[in-house]
Amino acid sequence: MNEFDLIARLAGTLPADASVVVGVGDDCAVLDVGLADRWLLFKTDAVVEGIHFTPSATPEQIGHKALARALSDIAAMAGTPTHALVTLALAGTFDVSFVEGIYRGMNALAARHKVAIVGGETTTNPERMLISIALLGWAAKDKCVRRSGAKVGDAIFVTGELGGSLAGRHLEFEPRLSEARWLAKSFSIHSMIDLSDGLAGDLRHILKVSDVGAELLAKAIPVSRAAKLRGPEGSATKPRLLAALADGEDFELVFTIASADAVSLLDAWKQKFPALRLSCIGKITTGTGITLRDYQGVRPLNVQGYTHFA
Amino acid sequence: MNEFDLIARLAGTLPADASVVVGVGDDCAVLDVGLADRWLLFKTDAVVEGIHFTPSATPEQIGHKALARALSDIAAMAGTPTHALVTLALAGTFDVSFVEGIYRGMNALAARHKVAIVGGETTTNPERMLISIALLGWAAKDKCVRRSGAKVGDAIFVTGELGGSLAGRHLEFEPRLSEARWLAKSFSIHSMIDLSDGLAGDLRHILKVSDVGAELLAKAIPVSRAAKLRGPEGSATKPRLLAALADGEDFELVFTIASADAVSLLDAWKQKFPALRLSCIGKITTGTGITLRDYQGVRPLNVQGYTHFA
Repeated sequence: MNEFDLIARLAGTLPADASVVVGVGDDCAVLDVGLADRWLLFKTDAVVEGIHFTPSATPEQIGHKALARALSDIAAMAGTPTHALVTLALAGTFDVSFVEGIYRGMNALAARHKVAIVGGETTTNPERMLISIALLGWAAKDKCVRRSGAKVGDAIFVTGELGGSLAGRHLEFEPRLSEARWLAKSFSIHSMIDLSDGLAGDLRHILKVSDVGAELLAKAIPVSRAAKLRGPEGSATKPRLLAALADGEDFELVFTIASADAVSLLDAWKQKFPALRLSCIGKITTGTGITLRDYQGVRPLNVQGYTHFA
Repeated sequence: MNEFDLIARLAGTLPADASVVVGVGDDCAVLDVGLADRWLLFKTDAVVEGIHFTPSATPEQIGHKALARALSDIAAMAGTPTHALVTLALAGTFDVSFVEGIYRGMNALAARHKVAIVGGETTTNPERMLISIALLGWAAKDKCVRRSGAKVGDAIFVTGELGGSLAGRHLEFEPRLSEARWLAKSFSIHSMIDLSDGLAGDLRHILKVSDVGAELLAKAIPVSRAAKLRGPEGSATKPRLLAALADGEDFELVFTIASADAVSLLDAWKQKFPALRLSCIGKITTGTGITLRDYQGVRPLNVQGYTHFA
């Protein structure tokens, strides 16, 4: 049983009430707390030593990544993060300067995105460090983008380049908060998710809850330089396209938009974010699951994103 | 360096803003999110296998304790909990029915206090289970009780009985939410905290931020049956009074109130909560720290609460 099966099995049993706009099954929980124009976003995310970072990571990188992952989930709903709590589970003995480095990394990222770190707690996890972030934010009620709005005929877009993140990017990525808010403000974005488990896996979450399928164009998928460097297509090492589809930890945005808006989106994006690639990689279709169109024709994409407990 | 020293060292570096009513240093963070009459309360708390529970605990007890600890912090500010997220860090292989048991324990407690569990995540912690709870709640702006309001001359009260919690109570306690709300609604409560690290340790948090001292009356401190059973006063086992002062995990409320209100509080309490003991255990004084008055006279209380990373 993987993470998603377990969560699905547990979700039906959870106590809920009318204030819960979106519970389990989107990037954040969405709550109505009585504010006229906005919803509260609520999210937790954890990183674990040896799984999400290795001893070669600096403490600043570890702190950055811990907070950035949660911020990326706020971005995926076009939200604005506001307040964070930090749970730091440390081995019995620890180096205070290392912990201060973790906070330097978190604080710098938090300050850049105007997030207040309002406390937290330390606890003991004898064998390895674990950092859990609880994050609050808000989204305008009419601009909050969910996973469930993809429509047949939509164009599918992805920011940045995919694959090879473990070569370094996963420790230093900047969450796509301003890009996501600009998108939701400027266009009617039908559905969105951030890429943590890989395009092939995360896009399926959109398809499932929107009850649609997708056709991806192989040559349109933006492959990162890190994925290309790792090995040429067809060699014994991992093919580049597979890396872009399934490596995970990209923390880019995938979203869908009416195809009629695609050209004006690309034009406006180039003006607004000239340094960040935006790619149209396919379209939403009837049916279920993902098909891939390449020089050999169209075939079902069986590769899954990395279905980890992470 | 213990938990409190580390948090104090880090606290000064944290990014903050005007929406933060109370950040580090109280039972919950208190946030102004733009609601006219209420503040948002925000709290995280974690339990770790082998530290906060042992293999002899049932999964229902583990789930109950994980959520109850965080709820107790909402109680300490006289708040009302509303929404929780659950981070479950599991060993690589786990028993699905055990995880379902944990959720049964959490869900039952959540339903009793009208808390919606709005999602969470699972991750891997190979050597031991860790459960982190992120909790939201609210408090009326004019009823939110902080640690910092104790005044010289206040009477100090404690609910329930103290000590010996590890004999069983720590897995089954009911957070004092309704009691705390009734107190804040019915009386002017000057300061309050919940007892997680033991009376001797937690009362010091009130004293420090209120810039006052306390004199406790040894014979007035309510010692639990579990602490009494463990060993008679003066034997080779732990003295009863020390157990009540320092065992920790009581999850009772300690609060201070003007001494003029003490008698009417005791009368009203007996009417409202006849099954739960309420004890006046001393008074707030000038100076710093805690003194203990017993049959030998008055002396400084040097015993600390358990200053764990937990």
